Amino acid sequence: MSSTTESDFQELLGIVRAAFDLQAAAALLEWDQETYMPEAGTEARARQIATLQSTSHELFVRDRTGELLERVKDEYEDSMSFRASIVRVAARDFDRARKLSPELVGEIAQTTTRAKVSWRHAYSENKFNRFAGDLERIVGLCIQKAEAVGYAEHPYDALLEEYEPGATAAQVKKIFDDLRTSLVPIVRAIEGAPQPRNAFLFHSYDADIQWDFGMEVLRDIGFDFQRGRQDISVHPFSTSFSMSDVRLTTRVHERNLTSGLFSSLHEAGHGMYEQGIDPELEGTPLAQGTSLGMHESQSRLWENQIGRSRSFWAGYYRDLQSRFKQNLGSVSLEDFYRAINRVQASPVRVEADEVTYNLHIMLRFELEMLLIEEKIIIQELPELWGDRMEGYLGIRPESDTDGVLQDIHWALGAIGYFPTYTLGNLMSAQVFACAKSDLGNLDEQIESREFAPLREWLQANVHHWGRKLSADEIIEWMTKGEISAAPWLDYVSQKYGDIYGSLVPDS
Amino acid sequence: MSSTTESDFQELLGIVRAAFDLQAAAALLEWDQETYMPEAGTEARARQIATLQSTSHELFVRDRTGELLERVKDEYEDSMSFRASIVRVAARDFDRARKLSPELVGEIAQTTTRAKVSWRHAYSENKFNRFAGDLERIVGLCIQKAEAVGYAEHPYDALLEEYEPGATAAQVKKIFDDLRTSLVPIVRAIEGAPQPRNAFLFHSYDADIQWDFGMEVLRDIGFDFQRGRQDISVHPFSTSFSMSDVRLTTRVHERNLTSGLFSSLHEAGHGMYEQGIDPELEGTPLAQGTSLGMHESQSRLWENQIGRSRSFWAGYYRDLQSRFKQNLGSVSLEDFYRAINRVQASPVRVEADEVTYNLHIMLRFELEMLLIEEKIIIQELPELWGDRMEGYLGIRPESDTDGVLQDIHWALGAIGYFPTYTLGNLMSAQVFACAKSDLGNLDEQIESREFAPLREWLQANVHHWGRKLSADEIIEWMTKGEISAAPWLDYVSQKYGDIYGSLVPDS
Repeated sequence: MSSTTESDFQELLGIVRAAFDLQAAAALLEWDQETYMPEAGTEARARQIATLQSTSHELFVRDRTGELLERVKDEYEDSMSFRASIVRVAARDFDRARKLSPELVGEIAQTTTRAKVSWRHAYSENKFNRFAGDLERIVGLCIQKAEAVGYAEHPYDALLEEYEPGATAAQVKKIFDDLRTSLVPIVRAIEGAPQPRNAFLFHSYDADIQWDFGMEVLRDIGFDFQRGRQDISVHPFSTSFSMSDVRLTTRVHERNLTSGLFSSLHEAGHGMYEQGIDPELEGTPLAQGTSLGMHESQSRLWENQIGRSRSFWAGYYRDLQSRFKQNLGSVSLEDFYRAINRVQASPVRVEADEVTYNLHIMLRFELEMLLIEEKIIIQELPELWGDRMEGYLGIRPESDTDGVLQDIHWALGAIGYFPTYTLGNLMSAQVFACAKSDLGNLDEQIESREFAPLREWLQANVHHWGRKLSADEIIEWMTKGEISAAPWLDYVSQKYGDIYGSLVPDS
Repeated sequence: MSSTTESDFQELLGIVRAAFDLQAAAALLEWDQETYMPEAGTEARARQIATLQSTSHELFVRDRTGELLERVKDEYEDSMSFRASIVRVAARDFDRARKLSPELVGEIAQTTTRAKVSWRHAYSENKFNRFAGDLERIVGLCIQKAEAVGYAEHPYDALLEEYEPGATAAQVKKIFDDLRTSLVPIVRAIEGAPQPRNAFLFHSYDADIQWDFGMEVLRDIGFDFQRGRQDISVHPFSTSFSMSDVRLTTRVHERNLTSGLFSSLHEAGHGMYEQGIDPELEGTPLAQGTSLGMHESQSRLWENQIGRSRSFWAGYYRDLQSRFKQNLGSVSLEDFYRAINRVQASPVRVEADEVTYNLHIMLRFELEMLLIEEKIIIQELPELWGDRMEGYLGIRPESDTDGVLQDIHWALGAIGYFPTYTLGNLMSAQVFACAKSDLGNLDEQIESREFAPLREWLQANVHHWGRKLSADEIIEWMTKGEISAAPWLDYVSQKYGDIYGSLVPDS
């Protein structure tokens, strides 16, 4: 390599590192806002985060970045080397960023800032119409964004690309169709079966004891507290400022034994992904989860495949029981296991169980497609929402707040985001099935609280890549196939067939 | 005003705001590092803070900023208006920043990064020689910096200007000479007097009870917890990310009753300064304390003039006593008051009492002057340090660690910083004397825990200005005179004459 190329590469690396540092700083400002910031700091904080984001953006989209990319791109073969990966990912990010004009970016920022406010009002007043105008503008801006970015088949592809690089609307539609065909009958069958009792989960459980139990579980599964921490926030989330500084938040409700614990496991799944990235990538844009879907696969794996498994509680239930003798003393392991896996249709996504959850996502994906194709008018959305929900879940939201207004995503301009939740669920089952097959006695390991082999397997197969591979490349590398609903459907059929009895008519 | 000028001003304001936002973000990253960050995050954090600072600097020192300043500067008369003040302060900051070449800034950053490490080694191994080489380089770079920035009389002026705008070496020298003449005999007189007992301060005091008492005091004096908070760190400090988000940290030692409380009062003094700035200035470089000295005057006022006063403890001692009955039950208010004001020469600045503290500062100022004038060789520093200390305090440090190596400031390149501590102490007495004269029965107010009148007076006379006025302008505005040692000497003579008996020979 010529010394010119070397110095060009170093300059490019300096730019992407600096832009990434500013994003990490913005992430800390957001973390602080949700954990420790006095509320009066909100206004200045919003401005500071906006400044960091726009400065990071401006630093990166300069003409100079383009020149450097142009000069180095042919010097690196398309390999998995550090340099080739930096150039490949930076070029992809740069192309996308440059296609969005500063005017469009500014208009989206302004509109979503206003929409967040109107959404909050609409939500608390249960009046979709207060938000409808801003939503209409956001849909229009998303269509403009898709046209600016470009796409091969469908404008939705361009939106999806932001959250799930490589995925397309057609691929998502096919996967969701497969899923729907099998899932709706499963949900119907469960509806007809007797429900396990779960009232004991909502008795009074001391918050400190819950916290301590959750922390012990996190230590056991291998979240590295030398390189991270857990705090309290209203809405649990995870974030990281480097692979050596990963933050989880959770909540603890006295009247809900498992909400905090499953939140902690979920966020720790995200966090261990970030902690498991190859240290060589530290401080570069490669040092992130590769997509929202793959990130969600890791959180769901620890929350559901492990945290809601019989093996896990065979290992932990006695411990939990001894901490809460009064409430759990007479509850058997089996009753506890069934209670935490109770399936019940609810109009609200974030309260949904593992089985019905994906139907919530499908509904949103279908409506988003119709919106982007301009096939429905905004005012019809609440009714359409209700109709589809009734078709999938057999229930209808009683209010806009419990229906079309329940999620903040659209107000943030995040159309194309929802499918990643379901892709994550499906990939979690694919990843877990591979791990099981490679590790052999995984259930026994879980039962004896030996999580290191699984964690190391996940690191070697998923985490360490960072953004070097996309989600579908990781799935391809791991399964020799594509993202698919089948392993998740197998998992659900087996698990819930066991809990609720036979779920599908004999074929 | 022409519309061109208006748009130029708005563009300028946008630049200084963005640069200031990045500095606020850097301050949050530093706060987090000292409070909640896992230690493994150190390396990435250092890089991120450096990126924020250099990006802020680059954003501000662009040619465009100079063009805009050039175009608007004549449009604004030299007034106290928001716009005129923005232009005046931005022009001053810009001139200074532009005089430092990127090469010099880079060399200073590299050298101080290395020097922090060699200082830490030297400190823990008690070997000045391990640090001497880096210190010599730092002195050389500070001289270069002074030459680059320029000065009217003495290169030290250019260094001082960074921390105490408007102050000069000649002014500091004169003030310190006045101070020394009176202070050394006072210290000598105290040395000969019987000491109050204070062993009871170092018995065991429950940390939670200490914390709660400190928080109650902070609420009483009026630190606004709606717009700030207090956390724990190894070294207490205060910082702010906006005037609505001011952070204090303190420490609580079980074996030291007052260390935490006086740290809290000190930091709250800094914090209330930031909270008291005119809201119009929010988000601009004017929204800061005007100098380190003026900042220190506010912290020292609450820590010493108030927190170590008889009136304060007349109001609080019964409360403290009831929380710590076992240790304080038989200690009278008067004994407590004398104990917390015990004067005893110590080689270590941060352990010094209110009376001897300024002699530590003088010693450092004198040595810094000699270094900048290249009148001593670095290797002679430890001995010179010992000689001067013996002259002022009658003691000699037994090691380099307790002597020339005790402070990190020089390793940070902060030559010209120390005098601000003493200027702060002196100004605290000037400010407090004015407040007393304006408010009349201030002692009675303090005794009855009525701090609102004083706090509002400080806000109106000191805080609200932000950087619109310099420290000497505020003192001039308030006292019709200059920064002077006399009020502080009066305060000390009266207070310690009362505690230790007559301090000065009859004149």
